[in-house]
Amino acid sequence: MKAASIALFSAAILSLAAGSVPAQETPTEREAAREVLKKMAALEQSLDVPGLVSRLTAANPARDQVVGRARELIDKELLALADDITRNPEIGFVEHQSIQKLIDYLKLHDFEVQVPVAGLDTAFVARFKRNNGAPNLGVILEYDALRGTTRAFHGDQHSAQGPVGIAAAVAMAEYLDRTKSSGSVVVFGCPGEEMMPPNAKTVMFEAGVFNGMDVLVRSHSSGVTSRPAPGFGTCCMNIDGVKYIFSGAPSHQLQPWNGRNALEAVIHLFVNIDSVRSSIRPEARIQGVIPEGGAAPNVVPDRTAADFYIRYPDAVYLEQVRKFVDDAARAAALATQTKVKIDFYGKTRDGISVATLGEVGFAYMKMFGATKLAVEPGKPQGYEETGSVSSAIPGLGFSAYSSNAPNHTYEMESDALIEVGHRGFTVDAQSMTALLFDFATRPDYRAAVKREFEGIKALFGEYQEALKKVYTVPSVPDPK
Amino acid sequence: MKAASIALFSAAILSLAAGSVPAQETPTEREAAREVLKKMAALEQSLDVPGLVSRLTAANPARDQVVGRARELIDKELLALADDITRNPEIGFVEHQSIQKLIDYLKLHDFEVQVPVAGLDTAFVARFKRNNGAPNLGVILEYDALRGTTRAFHGDQHSAQGPVGIAAAVAMAEYLDRTKSSGSVVVFGCPGEEMMPPNAKTVMFEAGVFNGMDVLVRSHSSGVTSRPAPGFGTCCMNIDGVKYIFSGAPSHQLQPWNGRNALEAVIHLFVNIDSVRSSIRPEARIQGVIPEGGAAPNVVPDRTAADFYIRYPDAVYLEQVRKFVDDAARAAALATQTKVKIDFYGKTRDGISVATLGEVGFAYMKMFGATKLAVEPGKPQGYEETGSVSSAIPGLGFSAYSSNAPNHTYEMESDALIEVGHRGFTVDAQSMTALLFDFATRPDYRAAVKREFEGIKALFGEYQEALKKVYTVPSVPDPK
Amino acid sequence: MKAASIALFSAAILSLAAGSVPAQETPTEREAAREVLKKMAALEQSLDVPGLVSRLTAANPARDQVVGRARELIDKELLALADDITRNPEIGFVEHQSIQKLIDYLKLHDFEVQVPVAGLDTAFVARFKRNNGAPNLGVILEYDALRGTTRAFHGDQHSAQGPVGIAAAVAMAEYLDRTKSSGSVVVFGCPGEEMMPPNAKTVMFEAGVFNGMDVLVRSHSSGVTSRPAPGFGTCCMNIDGVKYIFSGAPSHQLQPWNGRNALEAVIHLFVNIDSVRSSIRPEARIQGVIPEGGAAPNVVPDRTAADFYIRYPDAVYLEQVRKFVDDAARAAALATQTKVKIDFYGKTRDGISVATLGEVGFAYMKMFGATKLAVEPGKPQGYEETGSVSSAIPGLGFSAYSSNAPNHTYEMESDALIEVGHRGFTVDAQSMTALLFDFATRPDYRAAVKREFEGIKALFGEYQEALKKVYTVPSVPDPK
Amino acid sequence: MKAASIALFSAAILSLAAGSVPAQETPTEREAAREVLKKMAALEQSLDVPGLVSRLTAANPARDQVVGRARELIDKELLALADDITRNPEIGFVEHQSIQKLIDYLKLHDFEVQVPVAGLDTAFVARFKRNNGAPNLGVILEYDALRGTTRAFHGDQHSAQGPVGIAAAVAMAEYLDRTKSSGSVVVFGCPGEEMMPPNAKTVMFEAGVFNGMDVLVRSHSSGVTSRPAPGFGTCCMNIDGVKYIFSGAPSHQLQPWNGRNALEAVIHLFVNIDSVRSSIRPEARIQGVIPEGGAAPNVVPDRTAADFYIRYPDAVYLEQVRKFVDDAARAAALATQTKVKIDFYGKTRDGISVATLGEVGFAYMKMFGATKLAVEPGKPQGYEETGSVSSAIPGLGFSAYSSNAPNHTYEMESDALIEVGHRGFTVDAQSMTALLFDFATRPDYRAAVKREFEGIKALFGEYQEALKKVYTVPSVPDPK
Repeated sequence: MKAASIALFSAAILSLAAGSVPAQETPTEREAAREVLKKMAALEQSLDVPGLVSRLTAANPARDQVVGRARELIDKELLALADDITRNPEIGFVEHQSIQKLIDYLKLHDFEVQVPVAGLDTAFVARFKRNNGAPNLGVILEYDALRGTTRAFHGDQHSAQGPVGIAAAVAMAEYLDRTKSSGSVVVFGCPGEEMMPPNAKTVMFEAGVFNGMDVLVRSHSSGVTSRPAPGFGTCCMNIDGVKYIFSGAPSHQLQPWNGRNALEAVIHLFVNIDSVRSSIRPEARIQGVIPEGGAAPNVVPDRTAADFYIRYPDAVYLEQVRKFVDDAARAAALATQTKVKIDFYGKTRDGISVATLGEVGFAYMKMFGATKLAVEPGKPQGYEETGSVSSAIPGLGFSAYSSNAPNHTYEMESDALIEVGHRGFTVDAQSMTALLFDFATRPDYRAAVKREFEGIKALFGEYQEALKKVYTVPSVPDPK
Repeated sequence: MKAASIALFSAAILSLAAGSVPAQETPTEREAAREVLKKMAALEQSLDVPGLVSRLTAANPARDQVVGRARELIDKELLALADDITRNPEIGFVEHQSIQKLIDYLKLHDFEVQVPVAGLDTAFVARFKRNNGAPNLGVILEYDALRGTTRAFHGDQHSAQGPVGIAAAVAMAEYLDRTKSSGSVVVFGCPGEEMMPPNAKTVMFEAGVFNGMDVLVRSHSSGVTSRPAPGFGTCCMNIDGVKYIFSGAPSHQLQPWNGRNALEAVIHLFVNIDSVRSSIRPEARIQGVIPEGGAAPNVVPDRTAADFYIRYPDAVYLEQVRKFVDDAARAAALATQTKVKIDFYGKTRDGISVATLGEVGFAYMKMFGATKLAVEPGKPQGYEETGSVSSAIPGLGFSAYSSNAPNHTYEMESDALIEVGHRGFTVDAQSMTALLFDFATRPDYRAAVKREFEGIKALFGEYQEALKKVYTVPSVPDPK
Repeated sequence: MKAASIALFSAAILSLAAGSVPAQETPTEREAAREVLKKMAALEQSLDVPGLVSRLTAANPARDQVVGRARELIDKELLALADDITRNPEIGFVEHQSIQKLIDYLKLHDFEVQVPVAGLDTAFVARFKRNNGAPNLGVILEYDALRGTTRAFHGDQHSAQGPVGIAAAVAMAEYLDRTKSSGSVVVFGCPGEEMMPPNAKTVMFEAGVFNGMDVLVRSHSSGVTSRPAPGFGTCCMNIDGVKYIFSGAPSHQLQPWNGRNALEAVIHLFVNIDSVRSSIRPEARIQGVIPEGGAAPNVVPDRTAADFYIRYPDAVYLEQVRKFVDDAARAAALATQTKVKIDFYGKTRDGISVATLGEVGFAYMKMFGATKLAVEPGKPQGYEETGSVSSAIPGLGFSAYSSNAPNHTYEMESDALIEVGHRGFTVDAQSMTALLFDFATRPDYRAAVKREFEGIKALFGEYQEALKKVYTVPSVPDPK
Repeated sequence: MKAASIALFSAAILSLAAGSVPAQETPTEREAAREVLKKMAALEQSLDVPGLVSRLTAANPARDQVVGRARELIDKELLALADDITRNPEIGFVEHQSIQKLIDYLKLHDFEVQVPVAGLDTAFVARFKRNNGAPNLGVILEYDALRGTTRAFHGDQHSAQGPVGIAAAVAMAEYLDRTKSSGSVVVFGCPGEEMMPPNAKTVMFEAGVFNGMDVLVRSHSSGVTSRPAPGFGTCCMNIDGVKYIFSGAPSHQLQPWNGRNALEAVIHLFVNIDSVRSSIRPEARIQGVIPEGGAAPNVVPDRTAADFYIRYPDAVYLEQVRKFVDDAARAAALATQTKVKIDFYGKTRDGISVATLGEVGFAYMKMFGATKLAVEPGKPQGYEETGSVSSAIPGLGFSAYSSNAPNHTYEMESDALIEVGHRGFTVDAQSMTALLFDFATRPDYRAAVKREFEGIKALFGEYQEALKKVYTVPSVPDPK
């Protein structure tokens, strides 16, 4: 019974780049990414990001003037606006008052506002009226609150994103206008980040709302001042959100054979999934609930529904996992003579992060007084949660330390109203302005960002191809 | 492969008493009831019910006077009250306005009203103030409407039960009072007949509300003028209503091993039940729904619930069926390391019907002009749905033809407001009064009812004992 | 909650023809058969079977002479041959010694024997060498023993069928030959009655082996002397025997995602069936076993199999039941990404019985001394177990009392060797000879049998059509 | 939706000791082992194993003489004996001829043989007749062949273990005897290594068979010349082998309610396990088969059985996994009203490996000409597969390169008969003799081995305690 223990445990001896968290979470992924990661290391070395950071963050009165204007707006008006929104939380897709306040402010500062966009009532796009060609600077705002057990609340501090982003947008727009520089500023109001369906940014992206942007920035609350490592990835796996709706035929309990039981169908969706858990790689996470489980115990249920989040570290094997779950639903319908509708209502995918934005942004956050600094870059990931925008357009999420509480807590909401929050928002607004200034005024910087982003995007494509090769599906012969 | 086909099909050759529907629905039950049914036939023969009917329904001016008074109340006031309640439907346990109207009327006619009773807000007991000892005549009223998809509605015509019953109660109370006869009249307001939990009449019965009654009557809408055969039974099997509530431990979807999944538990309750369906006699009906099936797909559900109706033709084997379902729940909890609470919230059981009341009542319905007469008596069953009262106290449900629509329809509600309904309610009120008159004034009749009821009750006990003997549980040896 | 109890229990009040067991076992079937049964009663009345019986069983020296010859063969040689076969039991499809003994005897009496037939090693056809046209008299012989826990045994007394049938065949062949009468005698050796697959008689029937026969007779052990009522039916429901074979992909237990689990597939076949048990009419019986359930616990099983008997009282709804089971298998394969092969290896269906043969045969059994007489005819059913032959060609199974033990017991085997068995076999041989004599010599009798058989066959077709109309499949809308 | 990605992926950044494969396979285990591994590193450093190796493998004519004698026995007789056993393979527990050959040889060389031992027919203990106190040198022999699809075969080369071990045992016994040195030699014949139940070495160990041994050695075929790192571990997880046997009650398919279905029980064992797969840490491997799945489709199965291997990287959490599976079986019995017997028939657990034996053995293998050398030590693991002996008594498995084929192949069997195998066996015999010589003659060496072994054993205990602390069971509140 001597077994070759080597293959089984080879995962563990993969030597890891000291300190940073890799995007590849499974042995199979690390194996597939081996060549890609070598090329990425070469790309990063060729960019000399530390040199770039030094040059950009050197003394620059013009930049400081624009940053000062953003600071002025924040101090005078926008922190107050943030507090106002914090105190009047609205959950996703009904943030009507919140966007009205943001839109009013933008209009006052010469932005032209389109609302709704992409069929979403509380999505908007605001363009500075005197925009002047490329480069196109985009600022993403979010404003939805969380659903608490007793009330909506801003436990993720989205309430401050609008004011912070607007400070940078207005300051940059005024600068470009005043100096007659080439460049445009566009603000994107993005609803319902915490909810799906729909997946708002993906809907907007697919409707072409972000077309033409050269860079996108966003601010977000955080317990530490951090930035992602360059690469591709996501915080919490690639996700498919899917609803399975079953219909049967009703019948009185006394003659159930005259009906078809949609509850049995939804139950066997779960049972079928359980039957293949051991045939699916162990890193998958498949979890569902039954929001509709039948109406009355004396009638055969004719309608039921289940809601699932299906996750895997990469999108390639996720497709195979998803097929297992869809087949589980189809099999449940087949066995129970019911019908199923598969409603694939949303997804999150790997985004791209670049060091040319991440390290410069991080340096500015330090410069403008951010504390609680993460020494090493975090896991590579996009600046927004769906991956649809952040894998297509370079950008950066600013995350200066703004709370002592974990995300999604009532304590983080409270912190939004006091010193710790205000200080973080101010740092984000200043750093965002500085980075946009550099991006707008330095063609060589834009070229470096573009080169890095395109390079990583190509490597991400290579990685996906490599994964497709390793995830072979077992061959099953016909039974005899 | 010659098989003894005889045992398998012997059920079919049981010779049935011509025309009438037996309470025994399975071969096993019919086998167990063989001796009991013989004794019951002898009991019935000894009572000479046809002779009794002839004697009672012969000309009787005193009776006709009391019946005339009931008719007067109906014509002048109570049909209008019925229409009023029909037009203002209230569902079970919130029939506040409906009972107020009935109570007001009863108080006006010298009844003393206690409300609430037995902890039920809309249950009441009304006693005539000048009640005078035995015999105790009880009248059951119901008044709850059905839950429709868009509104509450009186699709079962419970709206008329109060007015009909009150007509008889007031007429009889006045008669006893006027003639200084011995006897008492009590009216029982019983809420929520269409809903459980709670099972209102059972709750009231167990609280002693019906104690001391010698007879109970009730009126109910019907598509035909009918009466039950003497015996014991129920319309739609003996039922246990049970809720199974599971608790687990919550955990984020990414680390499900830190939780315990209450949704898997409730799912496996159903799966476990399905696994023994073929080990349970085929007449059982077990049907459930999942009103609580977990909250969010990215969190391991820590609370779920299922609601079941468990039915079997008799209560003895129902206990074995119930044990299978309870064990299915316990096994689901055991396997998933969750906990389960078994909430047995209601039941219906066999009631008792007697020919001495049924045939006399039927004869009066004919006499007072009922049409659409069922030639043969229907299945034996109690005069109320739970069986708790109707298996303890003799009584009769009056069901003169009052609608052309099936029960539980909007059409039956409409019929309550027009000729067909009004005529049926009037017949019920007159017949009920006549029967109560006979019962109050003829000790020999009371004795006959009592003898029949006690006889059938004893035979029901014998039948239950016989069933216990035939439903042996298979013996399972220890595995080796 | 007043419910219409009438529809639910109408089954029970169907008035049954006194005494005899109907072929229709469910309320739905009885409803569908109502018109057909009326027509069948008219057909039977028109045949005047009692008159026919009187005429045929009247004194007839020619018949008695032939019967005497059969008796002589039985007494001198064939009971000894029966004992010999009883003492040397061989199970189905390997009855090599048993058939050799029968074939040797037939050859000795001028029969020409073809073996094997229809691809079955131990099936044979023996034709009298001087056969002379129509009518064609067929005698079915069986000879397979049962599989006991410790040894093969003749617990169903098939060991005597050959000798009994040969006595009648030889006696009739000699008679026709001697009298130069028109007519032929053919003996059919049918293996493996107790086993499938294959379903031997169906295989032989479909190969045309029985083509041209005008009547078929068989003898079978019994605890009572009985005959079936005229009609169509089967002892123990219509049956589909089906094997479901699953293939997956093997993998070591440590990396199960590299395999596809055929054991999960077969398990979920059962689970899927259980999920629809309450959606199938309760008279269905679906029962399976897992003869192949995987090889080693440390390897993902790549081949499994389940074996099912699927039963329903009629073949029409059986098709719907079968679809549920087949779909359960397909769904199990779909959900587990395995493959399934559905091997429908055998079936039993309703056969046809006619009173013109049954009552005459019964009268002869009485005449030749049979005891333990069943007063009423038994359930209608064919003279062989598959229904394939017995629904196409008229015939009769002779069942004189030949044992005090139930079928399929070691005691019934013992009885084959003593007085009770020998007496029954002798009665069967004599009665069979008498009936064949009448059939061969009386054209009017042949016409009556034919008219009854064709009439019932047509009515069976009408019944099947009627069933198709009542078994509607619930309609399931698309989910929204 | 900003999530703390750090906790989730911290596993990946644990810095690993370069090159060697750790015994800890999960993040939780590595976390729990942190302190233990530090202490182990200190222990190893304090032992100066490289220095020890240098001293022992220096020139030593006495040792060379004894090694030469082993070589002589191998060359002249024992390779031929190995070939003989290879050509006459016998599977586990019936190795009667194989042990007879080994026993005969041992007796010829003055060993006293006890057979059977510990209740195992083909287990034996052979003690040299002139044994002379401590130290006690034990040699383990195995000799069982593998079960092939068509024949038994020595695909793991156990056929050579006896001859190799005997060469060393005889050479050392003769040396101690000749030189009147203190010391004893005992040979342990251990059957059925490839099969359980029973787990032969564990049975022998628990019967005290190995009591008193100071060191144990064994030879085993290998594709590379290797040795384990010091520590504790197992090649392929800790395993519980468990059989679940269900009993029900039989019944004909037509009346299944008279039975209790043991097949449903075993099916729901699997279904129950599947229901908690997502509640169990993903490194667990639970895989079963159904060797007994019911007998006939027309009878309710009354006996079934499932056979499981349950694995987890450590024995502490394995207990929790095991409880899930046992509870799944108990729940299946509870739900189906059957009974279950849990037969825990065998287990494998972490063994202990020490560098003081491993590195010295490896140096000798090199010295005696082994090729295909593994540069780094392999995963820590015991010298025998159960862990029961190897976690209690220090020892070493010798694995010189002896085949070009993977273990458990017909090719490895062939290699046992040619140059590559013979050379490996010879190297093992010589190295084993040399190591035993050192152990017998050098008290300081014995002390070092003992110190290392006791140290690691204590650390293993600490590790188990640390694991117990981290594997908390979620708390489940009572449902309300």
